[in-house]
Amino acid sequence: MAGLKDMYDSTDPKKDPGLSSNFGVDYVINYKVPANEKTEAEAAFVQLIKALADVGFATEVRNGDSDSVLVFTQIVSEKLLHKQIYRYRLQDWLYGVRTSAPNKDIAKHLEEEPVTEAERLRLAYLLITKSKNEGGAGIAAKTGQWKYVDSIFPLHDHVFNKNWIKEWSTKYKLEDSDLDQIRYKFGEQVAFYFAFLQSYSTFLLFPAAFGFGAWVLLGQFSWFYAIVNSLWSVVFFEYWKVKEVDLAIQWGVRGVSKIQQPRPQFQFESEAQDPVTGELVKVYSPWKRLQNQLLQVPFALACVAILGSLITVCFAIEIFLTEVYNGPFKQYLTFVPTIILTALIPTLSTILTGFAEKLTHLENYETEDAHKAAFVQKIFVLNFITSYLGIFLTAFVYVPFGRVLAPYLSIFQTTAQRFTTAGKPLPTKKFDINPDRLTKQVIYFTVTAQIVNLVLEVVVPYVKREVFKTVKDVHTDLTSSKKHESRYKDPEEEKEFLARVRNEAALEEYDVTIDYREMIVQFGYLSLFSVVWPLTGCSFLANNWIEARSDALKIAVGSRRPIPWRADSIGPWLNSLAFLSWLGSLTSSALVYLFHNGRAGPDGSPSGIRAWALLLSILLGEHIYLVVQRVVRHVVGKMDRPGLQKERAERFAMRKNLLQETLGQDLTEEASGPGFSGGEKITREALEEEARRESVHGHGTREELFWQRQRGAAESIQIGRSIIADVAGNQTKTAKK
Amino acid sequence: MAGLKDMYDSTDPKKDPGLSSNFGVDYVINYKVPANEKTEAEAAFVQLIKALADVGFATEVRNGDSDSVLVFTQIVSEKLLHKQIYRYRLQDWLYGVRTSAPNKDIAKHLEEEPVTEAERLRLAYLLITKSKNEGGAGIAAKTGQWKYVDSIFPLHDHVFNKNWIKEWSTKYKLEDSDLDQIRYKFGEQVAFYFAFLQSYSTFLLFPAAFGFGAWVLLGQFSWFYAIVNSLWSVVFFEYWKVKEVDLAIQWGVRGVSKIQQPRPQFQFESEAQDPVTGELVKVYSPWKRLQNQLLQVPFALACVAILGSLITVCFAIEIFLTEVYNGPFKQYLTFVPTIILTALIPTLSTILTGFAEKLTHLENYETEDAHKAAFVQKIFVLNFITSYLGIFLTAFVYVPFGRVLAPYLSIFQTTAQRFTTAGKPLPTKKFDINPDRLTKQVIYFTVTAQIVNLVLEVVVPYVKREVFKTVKDVHTDLTSSKKHESRYKDPEEEKEFLARVRNEAALEEYDVTIDYREMIVQFGYLSLFSVVWPLTGCSFLANNWIEARSDALKIAVGSRRPIPWRADSIGPWLNSLAFLSWLGSLTSSALVYLFHNGRAGPDGSPSGIRAWALLLSILLGEHIYLVVQRVVRHVVGKMDRPGLQKERAERFAMRKNLLQETLGQDLTEEASGPGFSGGEKITREALEEEARRESVHGHGTREELFWQRQRGAAESIQIGRSIIADVAGNQTKTAKK
Repeated sequence: MAGLKDMYDSTDPKKDPGLSSNFGVDYVINYKVPANEKTEAEAAFVQLIKALADVGFATEVRNGDSDSVLVFTQIVSEKLLHKQIYRYRLQDWLYGVRTSAPNKDIAKHLEEEPVTEAERLRLAYLLITKSKNEGGAGIAAKTGQWKYVDSIFPLHDHVFNKNWIKEWSTKYKLEDSDLDQIRYKFGEQVAFYFAFLQSYSTFLLFPAAFGFGAWVLLGQFSWFYAIVNSLWSVVFFEYWKVKEVDLAIQWGVRGVSKIQQPRPQFQFESEAQDPVTGELVKVYSPWKRLQNQLLQVPFALACVAILGSLITVCFAIEIFLTEVYNGPFKQYLTFVPTIILTALIPTLSTILTGFAEKLTHLENYETEDAHKAAFVQKIFVLNFITSYLGIFLTAFVYVPFGRVLAPYLSIFQTTAQRFTTAGKPLPTKKFDINPDRLTKQVIYFTVTAQIVNLVLEVVVPYVKREVFKTVKDVHTDLTSSKKHESRYKDPEEEKEFLARVRNEAALEEYDVTIDYREMIVQFGYLSLFSVVWPLTGCSFLANNWIEARSDALKIAVGSRRPIPWRADSIGPWLNSLAFLSWLGSLTSSALVYLFHNGRAGPDGSPSGIRAWALLLSILLGEHIYLVVQRVVRHVVGKMDRPGLQKERAERFAMRKNLLQETLGQDLTEEASGPGFSGGEKITREALEEEARRESVHGHGTREELFWQRQRGAAESIQIGRSIIADVAGNQTKTAKK
Repeated sequence: MAGLKDMYDSTDPKKDPGLSSNFGVDYVINYKVPANEKTEAEAAFVQLIKALADVGFATEVRNGDSDSVLVFTQIVSEKLLHKQIYRYRLQDWLYGVRTSAPNKDIAKHLEEEPVTEAERLRLAYLLITKSKNEGGAGIAAKTGQWKYVDSIFPLHDHVFNKNWIKEWSTKYKLEDSDLDQIRYKFGEQVAFYFAFLQSYSTFLLFPAAFGFGAWVLLGQFSWFYAIVNSLWSVVFFEYWKVKEVDLAIQWGVRGVSKIQQPRPQFQFESEAQDPVTGELVKVYSPWKRLQNQLLQVPFALACVAILGSLITVCFAIEIFLTEVYNGPFKQYLTFVPTIILTALIPTLSTILTGFAEKLTHLENYETEDAHKAAFVQKIFVLNFITSYLGIFLTAFVYVPFGRVLAPYLSIFQTTAQRFTTAGKPLPTKKFDINPDRLTKQVIYFTVTAQIVNLVLEVVVPYVKREVFKTVKDVHTDLTSSKKHESRYKDPEEEKEFLARVRNEAALEEYDVTIDYREMIVQFGYLSLFSVVWPLTGCSFLANNWIEARSDALKIAVGSRRPIPWRADSIGPWLNSLAFLSWLGSLTSSALVYLFHNGRAGPDGSPSGIRAWALLLSILLGEHIYLVVQRVVRHVVGKMDRPGLQKERAERFAMRKNLLQETLGQDLTEEASGPGFSGGEKITREALEEEARRESVHGHGTREELFWQRQRGAAESIQIGRSIIADVAGNQTKTAKK
């Protein structure tokens, strides 16, 4: 890391030349050799190099960390690369991702549209990982035959990264060009995250400003704030849905989610011929999958039970300690529940996330996307509980039912008494509901927790890495005085480069899911609870400015370079967003009804609450939300957008070309509009001629006779006129009678 | 009509040869000549024939009814027809309606896919009606220059019609082949109506059977029935949404709604160049349109006010007369409100529908589809009020609030007293809420009204036609002893044919909207109120069996042959369906809560109703509905469907062809699957050779040196092995220490 740090500090790119070039390496494979498994590792290593060579990779081998070998790979044949790229682009066209077909001459086509870095890397990765019968090397890290392959990663472009971080740290708003840069380097999947973050942060300006105003003028629990906030969340959601499609079109990735990537881990029960295509397809019984999917229900219940009871118990202890207990050590004891929660929640979360992952594996999806969506769904449930349950308890249990439930808190009193001087009752005070509790809690989650999160995300991994590295260095120094007493020392001119690669190999994989999750949870606080504390928006706005930069930093120096996957949306998170936005309409209206304007009675609990009025508020809130959503969707749908316009232009050009090819120049002009068609100008003479010709070899059927009574339009006109004269004459006669 | 009737009665197709052939006529134009406008009519007539001839129609003129001329048209040039058909098919392909491009050779293509009757008729109609600069004749019936053109219609295929009616009257279920027949004759728009009717009727089997069971076992207002009924409506809706797409694919019309037909009546403010295509486009300010669209709000309010107050007043009078009044003529007086309603509602509906049409014209849409959707939206509001408001009043006003509102009924008493013997109070009885009222009303709407409707739809137009025709004949006989004392008598062999065409010209235009409306309103009763009377489903099932036949009869003998438009869905009615299905979850739960199990108190009004419990029922009902909807949507979405499979097969074939064309045979095999690509087998030798060649004219940059250290895979393997040995050695040493 020292090298990287120096590099990002210094302004002279020459200072550390190991960072300025990637030596044309496409991917680095970090091959770990565990002690005592030398023979197997060696055999598998030979297979690895052979498999890579078979699909067209050149390889170079170097020393890795003390227990690993680094394999550098490069697609060796330009021709192979071009053919593959061309093929993928053709596939894109066939699936409707590209509007126009690639030029039929490969060389010419690649001149028109050169291969991008992201494309090359994506292709190389697919070549390495795809199964052998699909034409790849079939190398899947950490599984089966390839269990010694620790990771397969591309190398960072540190010159770019440095500029990127530097640039971003000095400007407020990310522009389209910034997103394009990310897209070229890290793929559309990462770019979509930043696009979402950017759109969301820009939209946050409104709740920040309006929230500040509401806080000053309206106070907490304002009807008006709740409605405006809900409206905002609808507008944002609908805007993003459209923006997402628009970006996908602009980035040329619309519909890539249709091109499904098969999951290498997919287990099939049988192979069957596809009735349509005649291909062999792998089949897994959907009923079995459904059975496994049903396990989600007990899983969700277990999550609610485990996390819920933990949170509830801690909550109750805290209430007891702060509101009832009045004995010794009170100031220290009040921290106990927080400490328990802080210690246990992340642990439990990790365990449950592990379970969620296992469950998702059990469900055995055929494609990466389906797998990811199912996993996201599960961790959304987890995060929903850990993030919002506490506030729900305060708002909808503690405050309204506190009076009723308080006596049950005596259980803690009884328990506590056992451990203290027997017989002497613990000093308590009268239980009063603390109406500020809700506000405090919301502020904690929307300010303190966000800051803590940021620190955990940026500082902790850095410290961890440094400590880990130091330990490792010390360890290596202890085991062998000379590091790598290998016959193969690093060549002098590669020394710095290899050191840097070893550093990058030690980094963690970047997972965009984690970043999305954070943003969606944040959106949830705003939508569900910001009516409690209208400054929420301000806090998030500040947080997100830093967040965008810290995420960039995380990608650039804290993680291995991500594989530049494509994506055409933020995927399953869109549903979570919709759910939170809708739920916000319910919670906001309930909160407003419960806490608006001094509902708090003398003992702190709200008074005068009527169940029907509460339900009516919720019902109204929800339906206003649904109506507004419809209207906003309609209006947003009407707006013209650059992406759609681009698509329209491309389609138009394509149509024009195709028509020109097929029908020839003369017909194209009129044929291009939506209602296209054109009447050939057929003169009356031609028609009459045709009719006459017909009559010459007419066979005299009734039908032919019918059409030959009037020869051409002129005769029709003549006869029509006389009929009209007759008709009019008749009518006039009648009128005169 | 006599001819038609005979024909459908007789079994001998030879009996009336005028019905067995259409003489190759594509369209008949009925040209009305009003008295005193002879000169203008004549001039316009000349223009008409010229315009038709210009776009390639042969014309024949014959006597029409006493005041009209019939113009028979036929596309004269096969070549023109084929070119036009080809062009439309090409357009379909470009818009994604067809999966495969038509063969580049027109003649060959038409051999593969001959022109269908519907296609020919549709094309001919477009040629007649499209504006001149789009290559048509620009003839729009009853507008501007063409105000004398009364109608433009194709001729019925009576041989087909006869078989159709005969066949349907003897079988229960319409099959796919029946729908195909309709499609070939009357276009997809009509076929979609029958497909919907068929699907809906088949689905009705369940509520009919279950409803009967519920009626016997559970009685009225059963929770269980309400839930099952709601579930049914969700399943039906989701099924239809999928089925609709599926049918559209099978019929090859998926996406035709994207090919928008410009509305000839569209008024533009200015013309502007399209930034993308460079075409001149007609522009109408969206703000102006929005302003006009906003008029919908006062319109809807006016409808509610006018129809609502009428219904409310009649309702109140009825209540007064039946439940309070006890004086003379009671048995006659109770019919008064029904008579008022029966007389006024249709009149008001017609007037308001006229308004709705004007409003829609004001909104000035560019395309036929947008216009139609806006109109349907408005008449849905109208129909909602006239159909359901009465029951809503009984269920949610009369029963729960009857006690409170009864005293206000004394206004009628006071009024009535003025007209009777002064001073003597009218005899009244104590007001009791009649709990059967709701049931009676629902039965009225779901049985009596359906039968009345059927009669109105089938019998009345027939009688009207016959009476009208007799009057006309008498009139004609009076005015001129010889009918049509024209110089142009009907030729003997055309006499019967022309008589039949004159009959068809006198028929009304078929409007599928009216039939859809009826079915949607019916679905509404089932969804909203069938919990009141579970036999509803049985009644509807019986009704719909007749409905399908009577609708067929209406098309075959009661209307002019419809123009075979295409459609890819039931269009705007889908929204109405969704709305009614959702609203059903609210009303059902409210009805169940209000009327379940003897809630009726001693005076007939329900007792023990709690507002919060009512609201909770509604809230629960709605959210159960929403959750079920999600689940059903997911499950239905997973099912494999014939249409989708067909599409997949076509796409697969297309891809395979295209790939073969572009890449050549060898690459196609592997490239056809979704994750296509293929590794060229590059041998290690080739790689090494390449590397060596590189090294020969290598310039010795760091990068080149890097890749030349190991010459080929063999060397990589060798060096890798020794590194592994070292690594393992080091580790073992450490372990031993």
